[in-house]
Amino acid sequence: MSDDAASATLAEVGEFGVIDRLVAGRRQGPGVVLGPGDDAAVLTAPDGRVVVTTDMLVEGRHFRFDWAGPYDVGRKAIAQNAADIEAMGASVTGFVVALGAPSNTRVGQLDALADGMWDEAQRVGAGIVGGDLVASPQWVVSVTALGDLCGGEPVTRAGATAGSVIAVCGELGLSAAGYALWQNGIDEFEPLRRRHLVPEPPYGQGIVAAAAGAGAMTDVSDGLIADLRHIAQCSAVGIDLASAALAPDRDALAEAAAAVVADPWSWVLAGGEDHALVATFPAGVPDGWRAIGVVLDGPARVLIDGDEWEGYQGWQSFG
Amino acid sequence: MSDDAASATLAEVGEFGVIDRLVAGRRQGPGVVLGPGDDAAVLTAPDGRVVVTTDMLVEGRHFRFDWAGPYDVGRKAIAQNAADIEAMGASVTGFVVALGAPSNTRVGQLDALADGMWDEAQRVGAGIVGGDLVASPQWVVSVTALGDLCGGEPVTRAGATAGSVIAVCGELGLSAAGYALWQNGIDEFEPLRRRHLVPEPPYGQGIVAAAAGAGAMTDVSDGLIADLRHIAQCSAVGIDLASAALAPDRDALAEAAAAVVADPWSWVLAGGEDHALVATFPAGVPDGWRAIGVVLDGPARVLIDGDEWEGYQGWQSFG
Repeated sequence: MSDDAASATLAEVGEFGVIDRLVAGRRQGPGVVLGPGDDAAVLTAPDGRVVVTTDMLVEGRHFRFDWAGPYDVGRKAIAQNAADIEAMGASVTGFVVALGAPSNTRVGQLDALADGMWDEAQRVGAGIVGGDLVASPQWVVSVTALGDLCGGEPVTRAGATAGSVIAVCGELGLSAAGYALWQNGIDEFEPLRRRHLVPEPPYGQGIVAAAAGAGAMTDVSDGLIADLRHIAQCSAVGIDLASAALAPDRDALAEAAAAVVADPWSWVLAGGEDHALVATFPAGVPDGWRAIGVVLDGPARVLIDGDEWEGYQGWQSFG
Repeated sequence: MSDDAASATLAEVGEFGVIDRLVAGRRQGPGVVLGPGDDAAVLTAPDGRVVVTTDMLVEGRHFRFDWAGPYDVGRKAIAQNAADIEAMGASVTGFVVALGAPSNTRVGQLDALADGMWDEAQRVGAGIVGGDLVASPQWVVSVTALGDLCGGEPVTRAGATAGSVIAVCGELGLSAAGYALWQNGIDEFEPLRRRHLVPEPPYGQGIVAAAAGAGAMTDVSDGLIADLRHIAQCSAVGIDLASAALAPDRDALAEAAAAVVADPWSWVLAGGEDHALVATFPAGVPDGWRAIGVVLDGPARVLIDGDEWEGYQGWQSFG
């Protein structure tokens, strides 16, 4: 694309011209029966059931352009939706994206967002099959992800049973650490600051966990304890985390925590947005997963070494 | 629900409390394997393929609360997505909704939005299976609809063939008329003003058209000529509309047009948002559909009685 077009505004190029540009040259996957450009898209659903989830990111609330460029915003929006599909024990088949942006936005900014979305979608093994583009006072990125269960049963939050092992795949607390570094204007610890902008969910491990007999599963989006509390409540079980098993996660963040004078435990236990997967396994933890605790009989609660966690409780919208 | 809770704000009740309230007591349909409350929902996809579309509505751009209440906004958001599924020749199986709203929004406003969404979804024969709720400076309603092809092939914009009849099911120009009445502060013509707030797509007729052998189909969202131009371009055909066949649509709007000193033809030909279905039929128009023109060999263009339409060209975002 020419630089001229990239520096034009959405108002100058118009909805249909921008959409043509965003769609041009993208390679759709084999499961796409009908891609962008019609009233709706059509994807294969080989399992006969389809998994669906949606998440909205609002500029100023979920991302800010003085920290993240639109490329990173695109990657994050796709990643967090993909993680929700993985957390059901499913495989992502495609995404649709509804995007709001101001009329004076440069087309090149949308190119970058779309590039980020496509790069992340390809890491998942899927494509963006459709969308909507509208005028909005600030950027709003609303992604819906579809997935296929590949013949397995959905792994909900309700299937945890006493005696199972709790295990995690992926990282804990990195996004929260990065957020604190950005907040404090510290420009060291580049990998942590990057991880706040773009999480790296363990793609493909949702299906692995389901095949290994996971009883319950979720992704860590609001914070480890907050998300495990959902499993505890839905499954009517207790959960006891072992601080010794989580200590390496804490130690990896100790230097950054010292720099911002924070408690690395609160990042590990209550930091969201890493989109690690956490699951309960009644019989054996698969390769690549780390045991971090055990499932107890009820009441529904989450303990650390047998005690209640009294720190920050995790993210809520409007909090 | 008590009035106390309805008058509390989102910030006071919190994300999870509001979601619990919005989900409580809603009856999911038989195609729902797993409804709201987990990382993702699961719907049946009996056809082995799934149809998917998404549309975003932004407060101040696509609706305004001095005209429409949140109940009507909810109905409209569901209706326009359902129409896109119908326009593929498919049947809606479920919706997911991502919603942004200011933290000081009253919970009762969200109750009303959800009631409108559910009422409209039930008219379609589907339910809302999941969603997301976030803080945003203004309301943003992003709906994704899923559908099932029931064994048929998707009816795209690309399948129109010369010699076919163009036919429409549903109303034309009512939403545009209603918009002009609202704009001019005229409080007569209540049915037209209502229709601008809540379109009434001809639910169930997408499948009917597909079964009748429709070659191409779309819903009238941007304006009859603008939407038919998409069919003309995708199918590389000409389209010739007969003004005599559309005259009853014009006549029905004549009184309102006189009241605002507008040309009713521009409402019929270029008014969007009615979400009528328009399709091409190579062999016979089904009951309930009205023939309004014929498909010609290319070039791709839309004519009225053999001439180009020179008036308003239809809606574009950022226009």
